[in-house]
Amino acid sequence: MSGSGSVALLQPIPKTAILYAMTKDGSKPKQDNKAQQYGVTPQSVDFNDWYNEVVKKSDLADHSPVAGAMVVRPYGTALWENIQRGLDERFKATGHQNLLFPTLIPMSFIMKEADHVEGFAPELFTVSKIGSDVLAEPYVLRPTSETIIGHMWSGWLNSYRDLPFLHNQWGSVFRAELRTKPFLRTSEFFWQEGHTAHASEAEARHEVRQQLDEYHNFCRDVLALPVVRGEKTASERFAGAENTYSIEGMMRDGKALQSGTSHYLGQNFSRAFEVKFQTKEQREEFAYTTSWGLSSRIIGAIIMTHGDDFGLMMPPRIAPIQVVIVPIGQKDNFDEMVVQGEILASELRRLGLRVRVDGREGVTNGFKYNDWELKGVPVRLELGPRDLESGVVVVKNRNSTHKETLPRAEAVAGMPERLETIHHWLYQRASDFLLENTISVDTYDEFKAAIEAGKWVRAFHCGDPESERQIKEETKATARNIPFDDSEFFAEPEQGVCVHTGKPAAYGKRVLFGRQY
Amino acid sequence: MSGSGSVALLQPIPKTAILYAMTKDGSKPKQDNKAQQYGVTPQSVDFNDWYNEVVKKSDLADHSPVAGAMVVRPYGTALWENIQRGLDERFKATGHQNLLFPTLIPMSFIMKEADHVEGFAPELFTVSKIGSDVLAEPYVLRPTSETIIGHMWSGWLNSYRDLPFLHNQWGSVFRAELRTKPFLRTSEFFWQEGHTAHASEAEARHEVRQQLDEYHNFCRDVLALPVVRGEKTASERFAGAENTYSIEGMMRDGKALQSGTSHYLGQNFSRAFEVKFQTKEQREEFAYTTSWGLSSRIIGAIIMTHGDDFGLMMPPRIAPIQVVIVPIGQKDNFDEMVVQGEILASELRRLGLRVRVDGREGVTNGFKYNDWELKGVPVRLELGPRDLESGVVVVKNRNSTHKETLPRAEAVAGMPERLETIHHWLYQRASDFLLENTISVDTYDEFKAAIEAGKWVRAFHCGDPESERQIKEETKATARNIPFDDSEFFAEPEQGVCVHTGKPAAYGKRVLFGRQY
Repeated sequence: MSGSGSVALLQPIPKTAILYAMTKDGSKPKQDNKAQQYGVTPQSVDFNDWYNEVVKKSDLADHSPVAGAMVVRPYGTALWENIQRGLDERFKATGHQNLLFPTLIPMSFIMKEADHVEGFAPELFTVSKIGSDVLAEPYVLRPTSETIIGHMWSGWLNSYRDLPFLHNQWGSVFRAELRTKPFLRTSEFFWQEGHTAHASEAEARHEVRQQLDEYHNFCRDVLALPVVRGEKTASERFAGAENTYSIEGMMRDGKALQSGTSHYLGQNFSRAFEVKFQTKEQREEFAYTTSWGLSSRIIGAIIMTHGDDFGLMMPPRIAPIQVVIVPIGQKDNFDEMVVQGEILASELRRLGLRVRVDGREGVTNGFKYNDWELKGVPVRLELGPRDLESGVVVVKNRNSTHKETLPRAEAVAGMPERLETIHHWLYQRASDFLLENTISVDTYDEFKAAIEAGKWVRAFHCGDPESERQIKEETKATARNIPFDDSEFFAEPEQGVCVHTGKPAAYGKRVLFGRQY
Repeated sequence: MSGSGSVALLQPIPKTAILYAMTKDGSKPKQDNKAQQYGVTPQSVDFNDWYNEVVKKSDLADHSPVAGAMVVRPYGTALWENIQRGLDERFKATGHQNLLFPTLIPMSFIMKEADHVEGFAPELFTVSKIGSDVLAEPYVLRPTSETIIGHMWSGWLNSYRDLPFLHNQWGSVFRAELRTKPFLRTSEFFWQEGHTAHASEAEARHEVRQQLDEYHNFCRDVLALPVVRGEKTASERFAGAENTYSIEGMMRDGKALQSGTSHYLGQNFSRAFEVKFQTKEQREEFAYTTSWGLSSRIIGAIIMTHGDDFGLMMPPRIAPIQVVIVPIGQKDNFDEMVVQGEILASELRRLGLRVRVDGREGVTNGFKYNDWELKGVPVRLELGPRDLESGVVVVKNRNSTHKETLPRAEAVAGMPERLETIHHWLYQRASDFLLENTISVDTYDEFKAAIEAGKWVRAFHCGDPESERQIKEETKATARNIPFDDSEFFAEPEQGVCVHTGKPAAYGKRVLFGRQY
């Protein structure tokens, strides 16, 4: 390892590697202008440039003329739709229902919950005019929907028999951002927000944990993302929550990305919006509510956890295209090879796979290879006239530099397992990376050095928000979360003294610190 | 038939009928307060009240605290999701891709296409402040996205090889409405907007027609809605279009509901936003663009085309719940019957059907029957202990007052075909109704009388927009569309003189007029 800061985590990449994907057989790459335009800055040179170039060149997203808002292009939208479908099925399997609430919220609603307004006021988009009418009370574009949902619930809720409300909404929300970055930080972003109301605290708390686990399992089992489950410290809580829990993932530059949150709201919002019900015992009580959200930010996590210097690596279970077929032909037989590619594709589609045949004319094979590597398609097949004659195909996994020539039937039949293997490879690599780059420290000097080297740090902390503020000021690191006892990462209970103040540690275990997106 | 105005179209309903669904076996209904709260005003008494009560009591949607915006509740959202899924698959099968564009549009964009700004300016929601910053240039909430998509396309388009762009977006749009009605007219509504760009006029025109036919086929084959395809007259065109085409459905009160539109935009928007490409012959040309949209309004069409005095009738192919099972039990065996209901449900689910078991306690069977009839579930099964012993179930179709007792295996195995039969019954009924309530007239007196009686009218028209305006003022009827030659309704070419001005008729056929939603 060399260099300083977060780039130290990255293996140096030979300069020629970036051109690798242009060559069919591993031979020395030739100069190719078209292919070069698809090259991206290596991660180790500038991770930020790498990210922006990958997002743009892979056709995931583009900048828009609206300050801070992005346009999600077809490839990014297809990925987001797959994520939506997967989560939505899970939510529905546990009894949740989708609703559609208005995008606008009366300004007065936002003011009703004191912490909430403090948290969101600086970020609000205000609608003050409709047609030529200036509004007496302005609306805001929802930064999140607790308030308007609370208002509606108060009209729908009468008896304990009506509960629980297990609601979810897919849509976009609006929070002004000065410095924006596609998927990670945009003024409008796409998400789901779950909102539930319960007759008891215990049931609400169970829901909060269940949904956090759902996010965790989805990340692990579908996106191949290892994430750490835990509770946020008081200063990192959602505006209006009693407890906030998160999943945190480690990006290839060592920074943390909060990838989903689940909040126990207690009776804060139900008091503010009169969400009351009659109990079994005929008493009147405020409901116990929760909210939980996962956003298009998770696409940023996929990019920065799995990507390499060639571009994206799509986790196979969610990849919009799982297998790409590049027909190899000359002018006289190219069309025929495209047809043959489609026949091969249909054999794979019969196994339920998502397959694309690249029949583009006017670009080289090398350009195509490079393009699909950049887009992170898990497996590429090459099919030329001689392959066809010999009944073989050339197989190349995105996560390997090795090409195999396999009997066609074997390549087809083995494809589902091949994709599964890539899934596990991705998870294992990311999981190893997370563990290797997290260290336990007991002095503030070690803390600062580790953070400066782009690591995550496990340290005791006294729980004082002012100390957290100072740590952030001095190191740019924040408390990511306090890992759960049953988290697969960093779960061990321990006792010690605060790495920053020397006071006795809070929480009964080490807190996870890191720089964050 | 009796009475005047649009209610004349409706068959009178005996007063007791509204209570029918409360009785298990067709016996004289008993008074039941819970059930009564589920009764709705008969269509023939007040169609408007009927509509509003059905929407609210069936849990499709609710009013919101935001002027003109609705909340779509779980049952309505599930219906909309089924519609989305069905259309989305069709769009993708013809090569369309989804994208996500920002909700906000710079005000200056809206001003770039002269007709467009004139059409939309009075309805715009303006965002003038973000946080505490007053914006130099305000944003508007998109009323439709031609402008911002045009802007993005201009950056993406270089060569004819890049075309066509076949794009679609699912989301909500904002158009201020003074008098609102759930699904039919709300300030925020949910829709899809297709936007495509092509290298030639012929290809763009083909797309416009293809997508209109897609809407028509989807309405016919999935929603059981007969709709008339045709071109809009000049005064009913989309703001900025060269040609607008629509599908029009007839509601049970005789009014028309425009249920989807497809626009040929020519080069109007591509000129305004510089959407240019290099042709094969190396010339520079503006792209030929289209747009087409179908919204949550279609739920209004489902309600008002199929509904009756008991409430909704969900078209089976799209129904969120296709079969509801009501377990019949006493206190001592109710739980057991709910379990038996679930077993029966699982037999139906194995056939791919969407089934719900109503295990609610504390409400009568009559209440449940009434509730599910109101919600329009196509088939209800009742299962009691004696039915279980004898191996039978009681089957009741939503579109019939008849109950059948069938061998259980036969009821299960026959369910898919039963649902199909209901689909065709609904389409046939609506189609007959549309034909029966449309008449051809040749004098303006006949025209006015027919419109007053709530009919659609087929009449020759001179094509003068001023004459259309006068007709609207005098009769509240507008030109719905000029049916296509190959439409299954009213396709015959004919010649005559204008019913209003006596001038020679335009279009070479009769125009369809009616009052509209």
